[in-house]
Amino acid sequence: MNKYRIGIIGATGYVGVELVRALSGHDGVLLTTLVSQSYVGKKFSDVYPQFRSICDIELSGLDVSLMKSTCDLVITALPHGVSSKVVPELLDAGLKVLDHSGDFRYRDVTVYEEAYGLNHPHPELLSEAVYGIPELYREQIANARLVSDPGCYPTCSILALAPLIKHQLVSTDNIIIDAVSGISGAGRKADLPYSFCEADANYKPYAVEKHRHTSEIEQELSVLAQTDIALTFTPHLAPMKRGMLATIYADPMDPNNFSIDDVRKLYEEYYSNEYFVRVLSDNALPETSLVIGTNFIDIAVAYDKRTKKIKVFSALDNLGKGAALQAIQAVNVMLGLDEQAGLSVLCSGV
Amino acid sequence: MNKYRIGIIGATGYVGVELVRALSGHDGVLLTTLVSQSYVGKKFSDVYPQFRSICDIELSGLDVSLMKSTCDLVITALPHGVSSKVVPELLDAGLKVLDHSGDFRYRDVTVYEEAYGLNHPHPELLSEAVYGIPELYREQIANARLVSDPGCYPTCSILALAPLIKHQLVSTDNIIIDAVSGISGAGRKADLPYSFCEADANYKPYAVEKHRHTSEIEQELSVLAQTDIALTFTPHLAPMKRGMLATIYADPMDPNNFSIDDVRKLYEEYYSNEYFVRVLSDNALPETSLVIGTNFIDIAVAYDKRTKKIKVFSALDNLGKGAALQAIQAVNVMLGLDEQAGLSVLCSGV
Amino acid sequence: MNKYRIGIIGATGYVGVELVRALSGHDGVLLTTLVSQSYVGKKFSDVYPQFRSICDIELSGLDVSLMKSTCDLVITALPHGVSSKVVPELLDAGLKVLDHSGDFRYRDVTVYEEAYGLNHPHPELLSEAVYGIPELYREQIANARLVSDPGCYPTCSILALAPLIKHQLVSTDNIIIDAVSGISGAGRKADLPYSFCEADANYKPYAVEKHRHTSEIEQELSVLAQTDIALTFTPHLAPMKRGMLATIYADPMDPNNFSIDDVRKLYEEYYSNEYFVRVLSDNALPETSLVIGTNFIDIAVAYDKRTKKIKVFSALDNLGKGAALQAIQAVNVMLGLDEQAGLSVLCSGV
Amino acid sequence: MNKYRIGIIGATGYVGVELVRALSGHDGVLLTTLVSQSYVGKKFSDVYPQFRSICDIELSGLDVSLMKSTCDLVITALPHGVSSKVVPELLDAGLKVLDHSGDFRYRDVTVYEEAYGLNHPHPELLSEAVYGIPELYREQIANARLVSDPGCYPTCSILALAPLIKHQLVSTDNIIIDAVSGISGAGRKADLPYSFCEADANYKPYAVEKHRHTSEIEQELSVLAQTDIALTFTPHLAPMKRGMLATIYADPMDPNNFSIDDVRKLYEEYYSNEYFVRVLSDNALPETSLVIGTNFIDIAVAYDKRTKKIKVFSALDNLGKGAALQAIQAVNVMLGLDEQAGLSVLCSGV
Repeated sequence: MNKYRIGIIGATGYVGVELVRALSGHDGVLLTTLVSQSYVGKKFSDVYPQFRSICDIELSGLDVSLMKSTCDLVITALPHGVSSKVVPELLDAGLKVLDHSGDFRYRDVTVYEEAYGLNHPHPELLSEAVYGIPELYREQIANARLVSDPGCYPTCSILALAPLIKHQLVSTDNIIIDAVSGISGAGRKADLPYSFCEADANYKPYAVEKHRHTSEIEQELSVLAQTDIALTFTPHLAPMKRGMLATIYADPMDPNNFSIDDVRKLYEEYYSNEYFVRVLSDNALPETSLVIGTNFIDIAVAYDKRTKKIKVFSALDNLGKGAALQAIQAVNVMLGLDEQAGLSVLCSGV
Repeated sequence: MNKYRIGIIGATGYVGVELVRALSGHDGVLLTTLVSQSYVGKKFSDVYPQFRSICDIELSGLDVSLMKSTCDLVITALPHGVSSKVVPELLDAGLKVLDHSGDFRYRDVTVYEEAYGLNHPHPELLSEAVYGIPELYREQIANARLVSDPGCYPTCSILALAPLIKHQLVSTDNIIIDAVSGISGAGRKADLPYSFCEADANYKPYAVEKHRHTSEIEQELSVLAQTDIALTFTPHLAPMKRGMLATIYADPMDPNNFSIDDVRKLYEEYYSNEYFVRVLSDNALPETSLVIGTNFIDIAVAYDKRTKKIKVFSALDNLGKGAALQAIQAVNVMLGLDEQAGLSVLCSGV
Repeated sequence: MNKYRIGIIGATGYVGVELVRALSGHDGVLLTTLVSQSYVGKKFSDVYPQFRSICDIELSGLDVSLMKSTCDLVITALPHGVSSKVVPELLDAGLKVLDHSGDFRYRDVTVYEEAYGLNHPHPELLSEAVYGIPELYREQIANARLVSDPGCYPTCSILALAPLIKHQLVSTDNIIIDAVSGISGAGRKADLPYSFCEADANYKPYAVEKHRHTSEIEQELSVLAQTDIALTFTPHLAPMKRGMLATIYADPMDPNNFSIDDVRKLYEEYYSNEYFVRVLSDNALPETSLVIGTNFIDIAVAYDKRTKKIKVFSALDNLGKGAALQAIQAVNVMLGLDEQAGLSVLCSGV
Repeated sequence: MNKYRIGIIGATGYVGVELVRALSGHDGVLLTTLVSQSYVGKKFSDVYPQFRSICDIELSGLDVSLMKSTCDLVITALPHGVSSKVVPELLDAGLKVLDHSGDFRYRDVTVYEEAYGLNHPHPELLSEAVYGIPELYREQIANARLVSDPGCYPTCSILALAPLIKHQLVSTDNIIIDAVSGISGAGRKADLPYSFCEADANYKPYAVEKHRHTSEIEQELSVLAQTDIALTFTPHLAPMKRGMLATIYADPMDPNNFSIDDVRKLYEEYYSNEYFVRVLSDNALPETSLVIGTNFIDIAVAYDKRTKKIKVFSALDNLGKGAALQAIQAVNVMLGLDEQAGLSVLCSGV
């Protein structure tokens, strides 16, 4: 079988390395070009020595015309504001693109520009870019030239709320998302707050009045609700490398006629054909360690009868379903491959 | 100066060892008797070898008549259901008692019995027992024979909400407390979910439909509000030994006339004479590592203008202000000692 | 292609779950039977919920006649003393067996009986059992009915020293192996010393006067040296789930005529055809995080000119090349499969 | 009682903050001046917010003439190469100095210059400076103007070997020190290898062919042995903030006439008057968590009869007895204070 040729731009960040890890074991694709401006000329395994003998590809600088000849599809794991300049060139070269940044996630450029504090050089691409959650936009992704990989908090929140919102079972004006991320969410950087001695054994909130991902969550939930939603979001950091968990609070639309068992059945049905969404039953609850290294999102629902508050819990790996592995899932859809290809059994029991 | 003689029953649990740690450095008291049914005849430092040369007291079985002669005050760190039987005997022997269990925290015995699933053998003591948060009940504690050390989640929640509730600045029917604890909160036990390989690098919710501490929080906030409060509470476990953080959501009573700066000033004023409550300003936020080993609770407030949601953040050490050190603070008040005695500078910079 | 049918006895321990993880992604085999006496009737994913949708096989009790009909080869991950009873029955049923215990690792039954304090019920099998390091015994493994999976410390030590010992470059009477293991080495159990609160942030030696693995290391190095070797071994525990690192000290046979560069070349040559042994150069050193989840062992050599002391550093995953993944490597050899099958790209970048 | 006035130069590094922590609870001294070039004008508690209400002293730049008027003694926690310039000025101003750097630890300037690759601007001070292990040099420290705080690995190694070396019970030509440190040993810095995501769950050796501390250990052991000692040293990093453990191997001088019980008694006797050295018996072994936050060093001895190898295990807190707390112990001796003042009960049970 001919394999699709994949290039990665921004291969040495934490999203990049997770892409390389999973794609190295993906039978349907071939990694051809790894771009990393910081490490041009080094081997990938010089930067991540655990990849010695697994991926020793030489890292190169960005050369779109070269990528045109070596790749069928390019995954960009670049900072926002950089992607918006690079992606159009890749598209012009005839390449399919999966972009992992905030630059192409928005339908309305003014929302993007306010959230990111940047002018968008190519707003015309926003209407073309497909939001890359296959569970919601599978068909559009299959036909897209440009897919935008969602943020980690948005994926964790949107999939957790979609059945409730879609079926208008909850009030849309009092939703609270309280979420926690592992430290890799901050990226591969040497800042003091992320040093071992400062971050270990510490739990803390951040960005408590404004976080970019809020607008992204609201956009997608508003589409599902067919009405504008504003919600409250608070992110936290926990002392672990990977993992994300959202605890979500919402009010039932009709508390006098509400059954959490019915809601659970609704979730099971809503996601019955989705391999990567695991709806938990029997009082099981999501835990971050149960999804690390995987593309799964685990979801459970609960109900506080006394206060008539619905709780939804969702967990994913911020580098997995929250970033690199969801990107590969979408790439599989874009290329017409088995959606699970390269995404099986990366988890760990210990 | 004559030192007060203190005994501890349940000295080898995690609350017990933190009591021993702090009291060993307390100039105004003398540890005389350490009771631990599991380790009778062993030295305290046999169980906790870090205490070699610091506390080598021999552990004894429970003997109330002996304690009568060796102690002025006894701290009980026993499981609920056990305290309710032991404490009355201690009181009968003429001892002052600080009890760290749920057994004497409730004003209404039916609430206790529902929360703990136990019959209370001495409900007559509930009206006498003082709820041991000195910031709220200092005078009563000073005159009490029996003080009940509050739970960790309740301390973290009540002190965080007290100014808002007391001043009727928030609606009392939509309060959500989303909280996280370090693993020592589960006590010193060898259960698989708390083993290193299962608990490290894992974040998870638990007791999501019902947790005992909810009723305790509601009781105290209802007193402050002078009306019954029911609220939503969700605890989580984070992979760290110690530390607790609450993220609390509440609705302003009058959103059209609301200023978060005014609220912050109110907090500063409300706690202006309280050494152990640190109200943060300048956008600083609580972090668990900043309170570990101390009796401090750090509190910050924030406001989401878009959704008109107040957020209160509070952090404490679940074994510190959440248990053993708050117990010592209350004991200091009970004995007329300097309230800070034995509670200075236990923190760590790294 | 017909897949070989594999059964695992002891599937829910930490070695078992790592076997399931890797074999679930192995194209050449099919997991048919998972035996776990403690969880009969439950699904594997009930015990390890991360395996929901990955491995939902129902766990069964031990039934050799059933395994005879459902398996081509059985991997036993049982405690020592149990394997020695079960394995002969499996062999009698005509099954090939890969045993992960100490019961069939010894050539001399008296050494086993002293190390393990047990009588061996089937010493006649010791001469048949092949010691399962493919790098040393590939051909014998290929033809074996019974292969014994080596211990973690022995694998880490033997492969690190083999080139030096085989080529008689070091004195055999002053070898010191100072090694550290992650906590999963203690197995899946709920003992207090392995609880999160006791084990986190702690480093400690154990079994410092006698550890079973010493005799296993000595046996294999003595074979390579063609002379009896007694060596000094000290294991330690570090606060991490997985990983093992050995720091080995040895004296050059001829210090006046010694070149560490020549030694490094010798290692490279010795292991030039071994995919799973990575000899490091350019002053790179092994780190446990670089081999986690893999079947690699990383080895580096250094020399202290002042004291004429050779240092060899080796790192592996105690559950990987130190247990389950080496078992799969050996199983691949036993079944005539590609030796790397199912063992690619399980590592993680973060 | 008049309190001695103490200044700290380099107050915001990890040694600095541990000095501030312990001195804040020290009854006999007063912290007057905290110098931190990086944070001039900020409060100490701005840099370490856990110190809010504990130490809010404003950080100042270095001004020797000011320190002359505000301090009786200055502790310098500066990088090597900087101390050697600043300390002479402090001495000239009439101040007593405790220096925590490598600059004044050596008797022979050529050893210093080779180990640190620097010219020493004031070699004349080396003969005056006292090596600050009170257990070895108490009297000289009491009379010193300049005391040099030893390195962490040297303290851990020298005290562990002193009884054996002093009594000529071991051969001096085959000593191996295999040691591990927590990550705070690298100081407060934002380097990628010390970031949480790179350092957590990782164990690794470093500086395996040459580490500065080797020469410092050799110097002091040579003095004790009255002969030149060269030894082998290998440091490692374990994933924990604090703590250090050395596993030391040595050959008995007379293996045919050797008793480990006699050696243990010798250690007990040798350190019988030393509060901060705890010699363990009954097969207890040092663990890093048992000394964290304290000035204790725990030592145990063991013997491998088969290989006739003595093993000595020693554990301390690299920021405690290995740095800041030993500095305070020495300062207590310099000032004629109780040697334990400010050093009691900083440990933690959990």
